[in-house]
Amino acid sequence: MSDPDRLQEALALARKAADEDEVPVGAVVVHEGKVIARAHNRREQDGNPVAHAEILAIQEAARTLGSWRLVGCTLYVTLEPCPMCLAACMLSRIDRVVYGARDPKGGAQSLGYALHEDKRLNHRFPSECLEQPECGEILSAFFRKKRS
Amino acid sequence: MSDPDRLQEALALARKAADEDEVPVGAVVVHEGKVIARAHNRREQDGNPVAHAEILAIQEAARTLGSWRLVGCTLYVTLEPCPMCLAACMLSRIDRVVYGARDPKGGAQSLGYALHEDKRLNHRFPSECLEQPECGEILSAFFRKKRS
Repeated sequence: MSDPDRLQEALALARKAADEDEVPVGAVVVHEGKVIARAHNRREQDGNPVAHAEILAIQEAARTLGSWRLVGCTLYVTLEPCPMCLAACMLSRIDRVVYGARDPKGGAQSLGYALHEDKRLNHRFPSECLEQPECGEILSAFFRKKRS
Repeated sequence: MSDPDRLQEALALARKAADEDEVPVGAVVVHEGKVIARAHNRREQDGNPVAHAEILAIQEAARTLGSWRLVGCTLYVTLEPCPMCLAACMLSRIDRVVYGARDPKGGAQSLGYALHEDKRLNHRFPSECLEQPECGEILSAFFRKKRS
């Protein structure tokens, strides 16, 4: 399956988050062509400040693989990872990150925290935006509804 | 109890981590003068790349308080938080972070990732080093033993 198809799978999880009144961000982890982890943001329902989609997906992928090293894995996430999540990707030794919408206010790369290419750290990997309008639109719609 | 006393409590947890063959880092979260969470690094035994002492302590504190907002809380940790953990502190709205040893190679502040004072983010807080030689020594001893 193609990168846009994988982002659509992540988007389906973001929709689930919105249905549960969570900020709609979804993520999947793919290993050897297979989705091994699926998660969406659960901060409110879990009362957990680190329950971002990426952190939950990374932890599930590690459980599936039986190792904290996500070698050979790609994380697909609807929104650009925040600094916590991009750092978590680095710590997990993931191969690659692909996201569907930039986050100018909270995204690590947008804010200039290029943790994925810091040569002083243990691991470097590509983290790229593959713009998918629906990934941003679902967030705009969510916050529009919250304000109304 | 004083800040150095709280760091001693975190150090006792770091010792527990060393006994379990984990990189010895320990953390406690204090709220209204009471320790509400205790954790040590569990990356290897849990096979979880995000199971740093700080992340586990933050999550336990949130469970105890029944909220993802750690307002009124201080995190005491033996080692300077990495970028993931400092960002997690920011996301949890914690009041303050105190650590007992600098981490020149992996600490967020040492590497120039001053996430705790970034005015573009939602929350700012002090994160300070209160040097406690034992907090660094337990790490040196651990890695010395690993290499021998």
